[in-house]
Amino acid sequence: DVTISGYGRTGVIYQESDDTRTNETQIVSRLRMNIDASTTTDQGVEFGGRIRLQWDQGEEGATESPGLLYVTANGLTVSVGNVGTAYDEAGLIYATELGAFDRSVGGNSLGDFYAFNTDGYDRGDQVGVAIEYAVGDLTARASYIDPDQSGYFEDDADDGVINGYSGFEEEFGVSFDYVWNERLELSLAAVQNGAGIEDNDQYFVGARYAINDAARIGLNYIDNGDDRAEFFDPNADGSNDYDLGNTIALYGDYTLADGLTNIEAYIANNDGDWASKESDNAFGIGVNYDLGGARLGASIQRDYDEDVTADMGVRFDF
Amino acid sequence: DVTISGYGRTGVIYQESDDTRTNETQIVSRLRMNIDASTTTDQGVEFGGRIRLQWDQGEEGATESPGLLYVTANGLTVSVGNVGTAYDEAGLIYATELGAFDRSVGGNSLGDFYAFNTDGYDRGDQVGVAIEYAVGDLTARASYIDPDQSGYFEDDADDGVINGYSGFEEEFGVSFDYVWNERLELSLAAVQNGAGIEDNDQYFVGARYAINDAARIGLNYIDNGDDRAEFFDPNADGSNDYDLGNTIALYGDYTLADGLTNIEAYIANNDGDWASKESDNAFGIGVNYDLGGARLGASIQRDYDEDVTADMGVRFDF
Amino acid sequence: DVTISGYGRTGVIYQESDDTRTNETQIVSRLRMNIDASTTTDQGVEFGGRIRLQWDQGEEGATESPGLLYVTANGLTVSVGNVGTAYDEAGLIYATELGAFDRSVGGNSLGDFYAFNTDGYDRGDQVGVAIEYAVGDLTARASYIDPDQSGYFEDDADDGVINGYSGFEEEFGVSFDYVWNERLELSLAAVQNGAGIEDNDQYFVGARYAINDAARIGLNYIDNGDDRAEFFDPNADGSNDYDLGNTIALYGDYTLADGLTNIEAYIANNDGDWASKESDNAFGIGVNYDLGGARLGASIQRDYDEDVTADMGVRFDF
Repeated sequence: DVTISGYGRTGVIYQESDDTRTNETQIVSRLRMNIDASTTTDQGVEFGGRIRLQWDQGEEGATESPGLLYVTANGLTVSVGNVGTAYDEAGLIYATELGAFDRSVGGNSLGDFYAFNTDGYDRGDQVGVAIEYAVGDLTARASYIDPDQSGYFEDDADDGVINGYSGFEEEFGVSFDYVWNERLELSLAAVQNGAGIEDNDQYFVGARYAINDAARIGLNYIDNGDDRAEFFDPNADGSNDYDLGNTIALYGDYTLADGLTNIEAYIANNDGDWASKESDNAFGIGVNYDLGGARLGASIQRDYDEDVTADMGVRFDF
Repeated sequence: DVTISGYGRTGVIYQESDDTRTNETQIVSRLRMNIDASTTTDQGVEFGGRIRLQWDQGEEGATESPGLLYVTANGLTVSVGNVGTAYDEAGLIYATELGAFDRSVGGNSLGDFYAFNTDGYDRGDQVGVAIEYAVGDLTARASYIDPDQSGYFEDDADDGVINGYSGFEEEFGVSFDYVWNERLELSLAAVQNGAGIEDNDQYFVGARYAINDAARIGLNYIDNGDDRAEFFDPNADGSNDYDLGNTIALYGDYTLADGLTNIEAYIANNDGDWASKESDNAFGIGVNYDLGGARLGASIQRDYDEDVTADMGVRFDF
Repeated sequence: DVTISGYGRTGVIYQESDDTRTNETQIVSRLRMNIDASTTTDQGVEFGGRIRLQWDQGEEGATESPGLLYVTANGLTVSVGNVGTAYDEAGLIYATELGAFDRSVGGNSLGDFYAFNTDGYDRGDQVGVAIEYAVGDLTARASYIDPDQSGYFEDDADDGVINGYSGFEEEFGVSFDYVWNERLELSLAAVQNGAGIEDNDQYFVGARYAINDAARIGLNYIDNGDDRAEFFDPNADGSNDYDLGNTIALYGDYTLADGLTNIEAYIANNDGDWASKESDNAFGIGVNYDLGGARLGASIQRDYDEDVTADMGVRFDF
């Protein structure tokens, strides 16, 4: 059985910037197609695989992801290859995102960690293994990514820095999602050596409570880890003198009486420190209007550099 | 809803050439697969997207196009991303093409303009927006292509020439097609800054009349514009001393009594001037035989350099 | 009509090695998706094409093959483009392969020849033409591959060696498969200028006999040809002083009474000579367990360098 599913989205994003050479308002589009192939054995065990085709604005053409392979039975799924990771798939980690583009400049993790790879691996012989177990209201995940299972690159230098790249440690992650009484969602996640960077350990705790059928409120805490990758330099001065800090975000959403319009907002606080940072607070408000199979959305947000960004667009799923 | 459609064609093309190193007769094949995904909202508005996979003879592997996104309702279609352009989609602009390969060395435009991109953008952050409105016998189109919406490249040099590339102007195009009484087709199109090249303005007027059910005759006029791209040098001497001129083409086709065999021909006149040009006249004759879902075709043509080219092949659509 | 079919496989491969920098045990995965499009004319002639998407462990992303086009009627198939070759498709040439990964380090051909290209052509303007005719118990194939039909590269140097590449000769191949009385399979194949390398002629004869419904035994003979490609240097000393020799392989498989477990084994003898070669004998044993739509498999083998390799994995088809 082979199916193709995914989504498209397009619209306009405004990004305040000090760089006078670039246009602050640009059209941004994405088209994602997941090709999923699977077969079920006589015992009811499902084997399958996925290759993703995706085009993002600014790319020369659509890209093909590395392949994902999985086997699933009785709620347990084991995947190999280009796997989704436990930390990235934690239930609430992206819950502050707003609008048709699902962006959150303040509430999302600032750290670096692996996820399902869409545009192709950068280097080495990367491999991942992930396990997900879903039983009743609980989902548990664990993942392991080896950026170079061949072992060649790790050995090339004592400090594991190759061509300006570090990141040859093995990443481990776990996450748990639990829904209590259909009202309270809890989400916990941790990742060690995020994105293969030594000691880049990150933690996440989130909770969201449905006050009634229309309103939800949530609180996320993220320890953004210690991203000492050679290529990561938020100060742009080579000093490596920065701190991604911890992020606390309060967020909620409310569906209007029409049942189609959803208002959403967040306010986030980050105690880190980097050169362009102007404020410990970021916030945003967004709206989505359900067209049935598609949605119109918009948001306006201010980030920790006190730059304003806004977007308006449409997204459809197929 | 996801569908894959397209065509394949293969055969032999002969091209007379003074270059003794190259083989004059070669096998030429193409396989095109358009992956189209769409969804329709409760209001009857259709949202969709397309990625094209295509392999052409001589390419290392199949290529993936950038993505196209569109929304359509009540005859109005708005597309964003890798859009088809108004000039390229004018109803009769390719009407002189012959045979299974749909080639016209004399009657097609000699100018440079954007179209749906199959092999990937060359550079920059290209984006297009197009509108098409079809009502009754009229189809109207407008398109806009920005070769670099980021604005970076345009600013890099005063004359907009980067790494031997010019072509960072924004292209605008319009076209109109009208069918009168199911007998007379009219087609008008214009494009400004074709292919992003400043002042490369091109115009097209075409008309085709169905004398009866079997025979049609048409006349096309093309102003090929002023292609002063840095990389375009038909004289191969760096002189930039050439003129693509205007092309007038008379063409027609006739279906034999078997209802399957279609004979087609054109004669074209171009008043331009470039180094290899030997004649103001080009002409060709072709034939297609309908197999029902596929067709066999052949053509023989002479171009403005007085070189003869001929082809024979098969094309099938799926 | 468009269909997507293929297979996925994943597991672990152990390879004994003297290279201390590399990990001897690695996860190895593949996901193959063949996109096949076809149409049938009113006369019952089928035209079609294929593009393959495939990801192999170690690749940055999935790759797209060049396109294959074909026409088939009354048992005769003519293909153009990225064709399967007669030698590679000979019925028994891979019959010694074991386990879920279908590997045979001793019984497979050691020679170099063209096959359907999955990862993209290396160079030039490669084109292939193949014919297959299947009538009753006989299948006959012939194929022709021109590594550079443009003719440019062949002329670039007298000895046809370009950038360290030789291999611009045209490859010709034929093969015949015959099944006698549903018990005895015979397979013959020959290829001239294998992989475009001059005088790299290879020959194959194979036979397999079904003793009963559960047991089969076979014998293969392969002349591995004379692979004098510039880039091929098994001695790693530039000496070009090696000989791939001839391979004789005895093999068989036995299905246990459960009807699901298949035991398979081979022993192969090669009289060639290269620097790392330690033995004229290679052998292996494997097992596959049928899950219905998927299979578990394992093998252990020793190659001519007296290195041991073993694998264990799962493969599913869709």
